[in-house]
Amino acid sequence: METSMKAAYLPGNSTVDFKDVTIPQPGPGEVLIRMKASTICGSDIRAIYREHLGKGPEAYQNKIAGHEPCGQIVKCGSNTKRFKEGDRVVIYHISGCGVCNDCRRGYMISCTSPSRAAYGWQRDGGMAPYIVAEEKDCVLLPDELTYVDGAQIACGFGTVYEGLERIGVSGNDAVLVVGLGPVGLAALMLAKAMGANHLVGVDTVKERCDIAKNLGLANQTFVSGSETLQEVLNTTYQNQGFEKTVDCSGNTHGRQLCIRATRKWGKMVMIGEGGTVEFNPSPDIIHDQISIHGSWVTNIWRMEELVERLVRWGIHPEDLVTHRFSLNEADKAYELMNEGKCGKVAIVFDEELKG
Amino acid sequence: METSMKAAYLPGNSTVDFKDVTIPQPGPGEVLIRMKASTICGSDIRAIYREHLGKGPEAYQNKIAGHEPCGQIVKCGSNTKRFKEGDRVVIYHISGCGVCNDCRRGYMISCTSPSRAAYGWQRDGGMAPYIVAEEKDCVLLPDELTYVDGAQIACGFGTVYEGLERIGVSGNDAVLVVGLGPVGLAALMLAKAMGANHLVGVDTVKERCDIAKNLGLANQTFVSGSETLQEVLNTTYQNQGFEKTVDCSGNTHGRQLCIRATRKWGKMVMIGEGGTVEFNPSPDIIHDQISIHGSWVTNIWRMEELVERLVRWGIHPEDLVTHRFSLNEADKAYELMNEGKCGKVAIVFDEELKG
Amino acid sequence: METSMKAAYLPGNSTVDFKDVTIPQPGPGEVLIRMKASTICGSDIRAIYREHLGKGPEAYQNKIAGHEPCGQIVKCGSNTKRFKEGDRVVIYHISGCGVCNDCRRGYMISCTSPSRAAYGWQRDGGMAPYIVAEEKDCVLLPDELTYVDGAQIACGFGTVYEGLERIGVSGNDAVLVVGLGPVGLAALMLAKAMGANHLVGVDTVKERCDIAKNLGLANQTFVSGSETLQEVLNTTYQNQGFEKTVDCSGNTHGRQLCIRATRKWGKMVMIGEGGTVEFNPSPDIIHDQISIHGSWVTNIWRMEELVERLVRWGIHPEDLVTHRFSLNEADKAYELMNEGKCGKVAIVFDEELKG
Amino acid sequence: METSMKAAYLPGNSTVDFKDVTIPQPGPGEVLIRMKASTICGSDIRAIYREHLGKGPEAYQNKIAGHEPCGQIVKCGSNTKRFKEGDRVVIYHISGCGVCNDCRRGYMISCTSPSRAAYGWQRDGGMAPYIVAEEKDCVLLPDELTYVDGAQIACGFGTVYEGLERIGVSGNDAVLVVGLGPVGLAALMLAKAMGANHLVGVDTVKERCDIAKNLGLANQTFVSGSETLQEVLNTTYQNQGFEKTVDCSGNTHGRQLCIRATRKWGKMVMIGEGGTVEFNPSPDIIHDQISIHGSWVTNIWRMEELVERLVRWGIHPEDLVTHRFSLNEADKAYELMNEGKCGKVAIVFDEELKG
Repeated sequence: METSMKAAYLPGNSTVDFKDVTIPQPGPGEVLIRMKASTICGSDIRAIYREHLGKGPEAYQNKIAGHEPCGQIVKCGSNTKRFKEGDRVVIYHISGCGVCNDCRRGYMISCTSPSRAAYGWQRDGGMAPYIVAEEKDCVLLPDELTYVDGAQIACGFGTVYEGLERIGVSGNDAVLVVGLGPVGLAALMLAKAMGANHLVGVDTVKERCDIAKNLGLANQTFVSGSETLQEVLNTTYQNQGFEKTVDCSGNTHGRQLCIRATRKWGKMVMIGEGGTVEFNPSPDIIHDQISIHGSWVTNIWRMEELVERLVRWGIHPEDLVTHRFSLNEADKAYELMNEGKCGKVAIVFDEELKG
Repeated sequence: METSMKAAYLPGNSTVDFKDVTIPQPGPGEVLIRMKASTICGSDIRAIYREHLGKGPEAYQNKIAGHEPCGQIVKCGSNTKRFKEGDRVVIYHISGCGVCNDCRRGYMISCTSPSRAAYGWQRDGGMAPYIVAEEKDCVLLPDELTYVDGAQIACGFGTVYEGLERIGVSGNDAVLVVGLGPVGLAALMLAKAMGANHLVGVDTVKERCDIAKNLGLANQTFVSGSETLQEVLNTTYQNQGFEKTVDCSGNTHGRQLCIRATRKWGKMVMIGEGGTVEFNPSPDIIHDQISIHGSWVTNIWRMEELVERLVRWGIHPEDLVTHRFSLNEADKAYELMNEGKCGKVAIVFDEELKG
Repeated sequence: METSMKAAYLPGNSTVDFKDVTIPQPGPGEVLIRMKASTICGSDIRAIYREHLGKGPEAYQNKIAGHEPCGQIVKCGSNTKRFKEGDRVVIYHISGCGVCNDCRRGYMISCTSPSRAAYGWQRDGGMAPYIVAEEKDCVLLPDELTYVDGAQIACGFGTVYEGLERIGVSGNDAVLVVGLGPVGLAALMLAKAMGANHLVGVDTVKERCDIAKNLGLANQTFVSGSETLQEVLNTTYQNQGFEKTVDCSGNTHGRQLCIRATRKWGKMVMIGEGGTVEFNPSPDIIHDQISIHGSWVTNIWRMEELVERLVRWGIHPEDLVTHRFSLNEADKAYELMNEGKCGKVAIVFDEELKG
Repeated sequence: METSMKAAYLPGNSTVDFKDVTIPQPGPGEVLIRMKASTICGSDIRAIYREHLGKGPEAYQNKIAGHEPCGQIVKCGSNTKRFKEGDRVVIYHISGCGVCNDCRRGYMISCTSPSRAAYGWQRDGGMAPYIVAEEKDCVLLPDELTYVDGAQIACGFGTVYEGLERIGVSGNDAVLVVGLGPVGLAALMLAKAMGANHLVGVDTVKERCDIAKNLGLANQTFVSGSETLQEVLNTTYQNQGFEKTVDCSGNTHGRQLCIRATRKWGKMVMIGEGGTVEFNPSPDIIHDQISIHGSWVTNIWRMEELVERLVRWGIHPEDLVTHRFSLNEADKAYELMNEGKCGKVAIVFDEELKG
């Protein structure tokens, strides 16, 4: 086995740095994983790639980049309890202390310990041939799913699944998704699998609407404009609105659209990050008995549940990947993602390269 | 307009009596409905047809039979507020006082007033060309649904929808239904529409299993035997069981099967009436963190909701009807239902006769 | 029995008009009620008293004023099913059609029929010695409660109870109430009865805070200022915030305070009407997994439930009444309420005059 | 520091064995705890003390007894993340693998790994001056609570809190508890703290009823007999029954009593282990729209939540302890518990000896 590897770092000036580093070895409770797929998240671009803007949990500490890693265990450290060599695994993207109340609920994302470290931010991530992860952060990837599926679960799909579970989605619901980046597309894909009987997507960019349509993820899509609220309402039963709405835009207009398109007694969930929202409580939520739910990432046991569902549903997150690159081409991958004219972008290794 | 009509009564000796009666006129808050479809319920056979066994709310007071009526309003009494001549309507099968707490929740089934009267039991029902109903008991039937669809909603489908809503059914769920009479078949049909991703049915009678299979309502069916529990578990993800189970058998063995086939953290609902149930709480529900829900009929606003869903789903309860008769042949219809070699049996009028 | 009575109208110029009118007679399904207590709501002042500002459901049609009436039935019209002469009753303040979906859920407040009429707005209200109400709008008042208790239930307490039920309040919760008018005081009183283990109130007006303190409704109160958020947080377990927060202020700052004082995983409900709200979803609700619930008035069966609870809790809404007037002094009562230097203001009759 | 200690074992013939053993040392992720209180659970008597009856998770492997331990950390192994020397801690009584789905939800009780080990059953427990525990199994005990409080939380109170949370208890509820051993008494104590407005307890043994009464935990208690159902109903509002009922008896009659005393729309939870239950679904749960919930132990994050609540409520589980013994007298303690003429029995150390 080789002892060093080439790994990608993000210096914060819209380029990618490669460094030769020693392949790490797993300690007690840790596993060494051969990387197979490592996708790029919008937050990588926003907070690291262009500039190192993030603070606190988003502060990049010049570690190997990539917080959506998926691969195969090649070596176990001492004292591992469940996973073994050969297991295919998704990595929950935050390594928490494991013993605070948040970690005990499985929400390592909100770990309150100073020892909390995000892969690709405060500890080495997935943009290298190997990664050491804690066993407790691993989720088993069944054979029915590909590594590129798995990389998407690590962050985006997990976040979406949690948000949809928060408001509940079934065949009783028409669902509106506003903001059709990878997260919004995932919301359409999962809402459909959960049984939604009518799906509508909205984005400011026509190309994104087209992706949703072309992938068969929405019954109808709309490029947002001054008439969008009425247009989306017109697609619903007696124009009464959507039982469930999902904001993935992170924008006050997108959020207003969701709130106002929610049917009486319906529920709206906010997944998209950043910005503000302003609305008029009396007509918007009080008189229509509506609730608005904040939902952040997910917990690790629900991520396991999602993996099970994906197999049962026979659907593949990798369908949202429009571009694959080898690690050598990581600079091109980040550049493309930065420009935004793409769906999901993946760095892939080994068998996933042939995809 | 004619002034008298022929109406069917059940004397309680396994025959049908026809009498000529005056066509009634609607009083204040009432409507006169031209009957179009009137289906037969298992409870008609059990409590009235063979013998007048029922007590209290099930005591038959020699009224025109039939508590699953559906038709078209031909005349409104004074002081009606919503419905008008020409409206197609389903009748909620119990007329409650409207002002007790149960009625105010919409559950006229459990009206606590002495004035409570079930259509076809304590007031005239649907086995006649005309019926007078209270406006407050009517549910609008949209053009997308047939009168035979509507008659089924009046009792069976409403009951099933409530039960499924009680436990929640979505694409996250594998669903087991035990007991495949008309109610069990309805449970499969609605669970599928609500998004269930795997459906299994069990009955003691092979013919009923075949109906479910032939109508495409279940992925698999099993004639119950000593191995049934293991067989149904084997159809689920890693043999872990069903997230949701529905008893429509009213039998202790059927109920045990449901409880024991429910997955850890799952929910079971009892819809089937009568009999007892015995189980072992520690292994059966405590260690698996399972809940068991009793659910009785439905309320009138949820029945309206169901009507809306059926239209949105594009499904038809009338698919469960295997035999149609004119009112003249009501004796044959009850006889057939009594023998049980059939799906749902309907008495139909006018355009529904041509079905 | 006398045949005419003096009734109060609000001409919209900050005065009260008295007119002699015929005492009405109950029709079918109606009851005649001898008025005992009729309280003044903030909405009366806002939308009618100063000017006739309201539109749609808030349009005042020059009827006898007063939408919080409580009295005793003195005569029943034909066809009443439950209530009888001598019954003490609260009147749900909106008379709906009774047959639309909203009415069928008991939410006459959002009745969708053109026949919808609010007592004191589009049909005669409680500011007269007698009122005719529909039986279906009456809620039985047990002997343990006074008529002044009952008048408060008719609007404010019902609305508060619904809002608290929406978010659930128990001994597990610290509860913050922002806005300490009669509705906010009711929120404190009911949250305490539902088991809240720590109660904090905030208002911009010191006098209102003092009322809450003096009535023993809050553990602590704060006059809102620049440090209020931190001050209220400091009263909670490890400064982590309130499990449940209730906005009764209808103001963007009050609502922000509620949202930001809500603990991780907590719930906030908006009851206060009007205005806007602006906040930052990521830190305010997404990262803390918080939900915001709109809640409007209540349904009639929950109002019955509230009446039952008040008896079981042994608490009295009338404790919030600071001033009582006879109907002759109605002008003084409205004037006082308009100035706002008071708690709840009641017009009372007969035995309640002696209070 | 001494190097050996005297520890208690249960040979399975209704005696206690003492052995001198080496004081263990904490490994990575482990802590050494100085024992302060170690209470005896009914399951110790049932499955170990008299005979070694238990199988699987209940198989006693001749380890130091005691699965309700509470003490103070005196030494941390390497790689601990949260707890430190001097911390007072409760130990969750099952040490799970930490990485299966059940452990990830915090329910180590249902850990599916072969490495699962219960303290006092498959690994050394609390009946010795020192214990080594995994840091991940520790719950911080605040200064406001005593070690004897903490020992009770470890098993009984945690189990009860989970059960009550499953059905929800607030000031809206009258609560019936059947079976007044330590678990049932805990149910009364916690239901009251959660806000229950009326509490009734039932047991077959008068002495247990008296304890509940004398501790002020119940408004009324009843020694069960042929009239008990009617007697407990008579204590409720209009004899309508209890919104919430809790079975701690593990007995079919106790469970029937709970189910039949549950009010329409109410919820019943089964906590008591063993035995069977038989009932009549139609009258017992279907027509009354009742649900029955199985609840098993609790998860570790909810146990932390319970600790917080106890502090906020200012209540003390140790109030249920009727007898304290030093470790030397462990044989007397088990003997007393075996006879059953007592409340909770505790082995105490150091400052708790003075209690």
